[in-house]
Amino acid sequence: MNTYIGVDVGGTQIRVAIFPETGSVPIHQERISTRNTNESELDRLVSLISQLWPTEGKVLAIGVAAPGPLDSKAGVIFSAPNIPAWVDLPLRQVLKDRFCVPVALGNDANLAALGEWKYGAGQGHHNLLYMTISTGIGGGVISDDHLLLGEHGLATELGHVTILPDGPLCSCGQRGHVEAICSGTGIANYVAEEIQKGIPTRLPAKPRPTSKEIAQAARDGDALALAAMDRAAGFLGLALANYLHIFNPSIIILGGGVSRSGDVLFTPMKAAMHKYIIDPAYFKDLTITTAALGDNAGLLGALALAQEIQS
Amino acid sequence: MNTYIGVDVGGTQIRVAIFPETGSVPIHQERISTRNTNESELDRLVSLISQLWPTEGKVLAIGVAAPGPLDSKAGVIFSAPNIPAWVDLPLRQVLKDRFCVPVALGNDANLAALGEWKYGAGQGHHNLLYMTISTGIGGGVISDDHLLLGEHGLATELGHVTILPDGPLCSCGQRGHVEAICSGTGIANYVAEEIQKGIPTRLPAKPRPTSKEIAQAARDGDALALAAMDRAAGFLGLALANYLHIFNPSIIILGGGVSRSGDVLFTPMKAAMHKYIIDPAYFKDLTITTAALGDNAGLLGALALAQEIQS
Repeated sequence: MNTYIGVDVGGTQIRVAIFPETGSVPIHQERISTRNTNESELDRLVSLISQLWPTEGKVLAIGVAAPGPLDSKAGVIFSAPNIPAWVDLPLRQVLKDRFCVPVALGNDANLAALGEWKYGAGQGHHNLLYMTISTGIGGGVISDDHLLLGEHGLATELGHVTILPDGPLCSCGQRGHVEAICSGTGIANYVAEEIQKGIPTRLPAKPRPTSKEIAQAARDGDALALAAMDRAAGFLGLALANYLHIFNPSIIILGGGVSRSGDVLFTPMKAAMHKYIIDPAYFKDLTITTAALGDNAGLLGALALAQEIQS
Repeated sequence: MNTYIGVDVGGTQIRVAIFPETGSVPIHQERISTRNTNESELDRLVSLISQLWPTEGKVLAIGVAAPGPLDSKAGVIFSAPNIPAWVDLPLRQVLKDRFCVPVALGNDANLAALGEWKYGAGQGHHNLLYMTISTGIGGGVISDDHLLLGEHGLATELGHVTILPDGPLCSCGQRGHVEAICSGTGIANYVAEEIQKGIPTRLPAKPRPTSKEIAQAARDGDALALAAMDRAAGFLGLALANYLHIFNPSIIILGGGVSRSGDVLFTPMKAAMHKYIIDPAYFKDLTITTAALGDNAGLLGALALAQEIQS
């Protein structure tokens, strides 16, 4: 039986899965922690793929999802969170030379979009907008059945778009990005600052509340937590209205921990989208939903990418 | 000889051109004013096409550029500036029924992008961002050799993206859009307000200075005019940095009257792009230039569209 190999490199773990030629249920998969003091991360990745290499049939292609920034077209990782040794690493060429099969590399958020499109909440759509909202914010877009990549595969950095000049500081060093306001980090930072100012809340000052705790406190009726969710959701709705004007998708899929906040996020977010939209035509045939694949989105996106280069 | 027909419907004039099967130099073209009290605009458009209809060979397809909002996929114009009778007009079907050849309809800014890509400043590129900056702001994007349209052809409304919440009022009724700040109207509004406040300038309060006069005054060293161009250029640079993060193009083409302002626009705009970019990789292989086709961009885009549906 011929197979595809999907690889998902994350900040905490590396996953490798063997998929049959058709279908998306792995025949076999393994995960190891990304960091290990004795061996280089690249050696461990290569030896994990070797261990799982099927003894029967042909491996048609390997797809790899990795955290950006990376050039998916050149197959080069510029840098990777938690793997300091991976600087300007030509990972595609390394794996191609070692395993002698076609290899494709993609940004994890782009590949999660591809995974949700092929195997998850976006099946059957032709124009899809995916945003993952957790510690940071990443995005991916399918436009007329094409993954939007740009010249060097650096497109759809949907978290790093300025919506509030001189706004809160972002992880990237800029100010007022969608990520700086609407990510879990942005929500937690806002609440910590408000607590510092003496705004009353049932949330403790220490340990610093997480965005998950803040969403729970909002569902329990805490006024500061509700204000924090309202603020993040309002800006998220503004950002999504911008993205409707830019991409005109038929489905918006929200993934990541913050997307599991429920109505305290979705109700004010949808109200803001309606407030900021320039024409109701953008809501025609539009589905707004949450991601279906959870932690598997990147791995299934890597599979979809491997299938694409092979076809 | 077989031919294509290109049509450009504007607020002030309608143009129809007959193109040879290969090449972009029209064999024949005519223009009429859009408004006329005696006859409907649609009848006049149809009769102009009929008049110019080639007596020899076959018309392979008709491409039509029209001002938005329109559904390019359904071929329907929702409304058209200066043509109040065109509400939910199925123009593609009307022309198809009348002339019995394939017809395609596109938003004028999208088709200007297509025209610049096929026949203008963007030839040879695969990832192109086009913005026309005049009274309003429109945009078009080519991504991996595909015109980005979205589900109903409403994508790339690059002027109607919020970059300054609660900022100046836009023509669409929203606030803080790129168009509200960076268009000719946005620049002229800003200067008019500053003159009202008593800010010293050589520009007259009446008649209200146009953005062209403001750009000239800036080149002549007028402090208010320079501040106005700096402000618009700074926000334009911020918007373009956003679009680099979103589309990662290899060329940015700026068209429209404001793009002819010269260094008083381009110098602060480029400085702002560098200030707001998250990674210098976005400037790798990036060309920033002005449009090459002028008023012909829409018509040549209509030709390119006709060629696409035919191929």
